[in-house]
Amino acid sequence: MGEFELIRRFFDRGPSRRCELGIGDDCAILRPPAPGTTLAVATDMLVEGRHFVAGADPVAVGHKALAVNLSDLAAMGARPLAFTLGLALPQADERWLEAFTTGMFALADRHECELIGGDTTRGPRAICVTVLGEVPVGVALRRDRAEPGDDLWVSGELGGAALAIHLGARAGRCERARLDRPEPRVALGIALRHLARAAIDISDGLTGDLGHICERSRVGAEVDWPALPCAPGLGALPEEDRPGIALAGGDDYELLFSAAPENRSPIEAIGARLGLPLTRIGRIVAGQGVRVLDARGRPMTLARSAYDHFA
Amino acid sequence: MGEFELIRRFFDRGPSRRCELGIGDDCAILRPPAPGTTLAVATDMLVEGRHFVAGADPVAVGHKALAVNLSDLAAMGARPLAFTLGLALPQADERWLEAFTTGMFALADRHECELIGGDTTRGPRAICVTVLGEVPVGVALRRDRAEPGDDLWVSGELGGAALAIHLGARAGRCERARLDRPEPRVALGIALRHLARAAIDISDGLTGDLGHICERSRVGAEVDWPALPCAPGLGALPEEDRPGIALAGGDDYELLFSAAPENRSPIEAIGARLGLPLTRIGRIVAGQGVRVLDARGRPMTLARSAYDHFA
Repeated sequence: MGEFELIRRFFDRGPSRRCELGIGDDCAILRPPAPGTTLAVATDMLVEGRHFVAGADPVAVGHKALAVNLSDLAAMGARPLAFTLGLALPQADERWLEAFTTGMFALADRHECELIGGDTTRGPRAICVTVLGEVPVGVALRRDRAEPGDDLWVSGELGGAALAIHLGARAGRCERARLDRPEPRVALGIALRHLARAAIDISDGLTGDLGHICERSRVGAEVDWPALPCAPGLGALPEEDRPGIALAGGDDYELLFSAAPENRSPIEAIGARLGLPLTRIGRIVAGQGVRVLDARGRPMTLARSAYDHFA
Repeated sequence: MGEFELIRRFFDRGPSRRCELGIGDDCAILRPPAPGTTLAVATDMLVEGRHFVAGADPVAVGHKALAVNLSDLAAMGARPLAFTLGLALPQADERWLEAFTTGMFALADRHECELIGGDTTRGPRAICVTVLGEVPVGVALRRDRAEPGDDLWVSGELGGAALAIHLGARAGRCERARLDRPEPRVALGIALRHLARAAIDISDGLTGDLGHICERSRVGAEVDWPALPCAPGLGALPEEDRPGIALAGGDDYELLFSAAPENRSPIEAIGARLGLPLTRIGRIVAGQGVRVLDARGRPMTLARSAYDHFA
């Protein structure tokens, strides 16, 4: 199977909704954007042996490669439009491609996000997705808008994915699903436009990603450890192991956001409408840095704050 | 050096012209597009050991990773705006990054194409660039617009890059430069709006890429071998080796386009203005398939038609 046959069989799904000109030319040409909107763009690269193990279920790999990018759109309050795919493969393995594209397109279709172009080549397995979304001008949820006095919120539960890595083969189905098939919080991001002040998606761990909000907003933050919505599986761990996994494990792909206290009711209503727990976990304060407080309000000490790909 | 320090040192170049919000948030947010324009999007993935050798000059690798993408914009007549970069590296090698970004940004700056986001990770060296350009609605140069009777044109010279691969260490400076630092024909693509009918950039070899125009336009094509503007170095090869290298070697990154014969004068004027040879090499005909004709008008037989990453 040559490169072009491969594209035809696995990636070209016929007429495009998003493009005047889709897969099969030198570039895709998007339809003109809706008036008053602008484009959000994010890129993530996944490498075998680093972001997924050799022999990982290709359905899950296809899901995750797109999910981590959709999560970036969610964190901006942007609506997914389209994505491109750069794909390096050791060989043109039809069964792998069939499963990979099944996982990828199932998620893409749920978010009406269309594959509009890409490139395939032989090489060590690596996947690079660039996603495009739209958001009204001036409305995007940024990292640099948090203000002292804001509530700090987080969606869903934390630590499930990191627990799956921690437990390895002993991980339960729930944790494995959190690691392999994170659910990008796209609807939540869109609903939080005009309600949240600052937002980020948690990919490297809560404390590290909260640190980015603090740095860029020139504020500090306090997190109440007892308030944190931890994945149920963490309860089986020794108490001293839980904070590292829930706070710095990474791969959560939940949204962390700050909002003025007067927005509590509408935010709670959004959580109820989406069937997604939204939990107040602390507050933005004047100053700098992230402090995690224990049940008695005393700062806790953490071994590491976030995942770093080059540390 | 951690991931964020690396981004700060090598990739974040301060305030953005193209974005409301540039590097440092979950997504880049582009400025709203000019009225009446739309976005062209292309992605290319380069893998060490396949698109460049281990130990290749990182300045050249940085140049080429962006150049092959700008060449896709050129083939659509689109003006470069911005790009994202997915980068996998075996380690955070400062000297490599310094040289790589020097090559990449030198080309980017010449085309006012701004790095707006990306992702770095540890892994076998691979580079995935996604480029965004703008083109007025309905004006993009497509592959499917060639008509019987059109002239076939090509820019520059063919076969220089393939000759460099063929000769290996014996390659001259000129051929090496063609292979390592292809010059995307961006100004030509923009100038050809409203003049060319179909266009493509030659990345896999002239006959293969011309085949794409023929297939999508449902036409055939004849190429006059003696008319072909071959790189001068090809003259030193045995005569029978020349067609394979000039016609199917690939990596040329010249533009191949069809245009109505009444546009010959304005097209020649563009070549003169840009200081770039534009050569008529044949014609679009009714039917299908690509035929290469020798000096006496007889069809030539070629061993292979194009480079295929999975063949």
